[in-house]
Amino acid sequence: MHGLIGKMTAVEGKRDALIAILLEGAKDMAGCMSYVVAKDPADATAIWITEVWDSPASHKASLTLPAVQDAIKKGKPLIARFDQSVVTEPVGGHGLNPVKGR
Amino acid sequence: MHGLIGKMTAVEGKRDALIAILLEGAKDMAGCMSYVVAKDPADATAIWITEVWDSPASHKASLTLPAVQDAIKKGKPLIARFDQSVVTEPVGGHGLNPVKGR
Repeated sequence: MHGLIGKMTAVEGKRDALIAILLEGAKDMAGCMSYVVAKDPADATAIWITEVWDSPASHKASLTLPAVQDAIKKGKPLIARFDQSVVTEPVGGHGLNPVKGR
Repeated sequence: MHGLIGKMTAVEGKRDALIAILLEGAKDMAGCMSYVVAKDPADATAIWITEVWDSPASHKASLTLPAVQDAIKKGKPLIARFDQSVVTEPVGGHGLNPVKGR
């Protein structure tokens, strides 16, 4: 499995709009086992995204999906910066969707 | 929802043993919507744990479960340190288990 833990900062006042775009864009991504968008309660502009994919290739392929391309286009102007991005190797747990649609 | 993103460092050579204990202890926790344990590919002793709960109360209650208490007892000697712990407010996504057992 392939995991990502990232933190981004939205443009002031645009966090909710950015979150809505992220959630909309993340529907129906093949190989995506978990994708969680969270607010940072300590910072009104910060967003945490945690992802689990069945492989790095699935994650890479998702970036070419029309819905994801659209989300990137709409979301970009609302992002002030990327603060942190960590690649992980998930090994187990709960809430990992079975892989479908491949 | 209540989220946690944490990084811990295992005692040298004990990461796999610690991960096994974490996964065993995390079974059947009421209110747990996602619990993912991951290795850090850049550090052979580092573990990332990302969690989503239906409420802070459910997370707190889980710490009193016999299986979790047992995991804490067994895992403690294998933990070198806690590196990072962030509380989040998950707002949506995929791979969030419906809450059961309450």
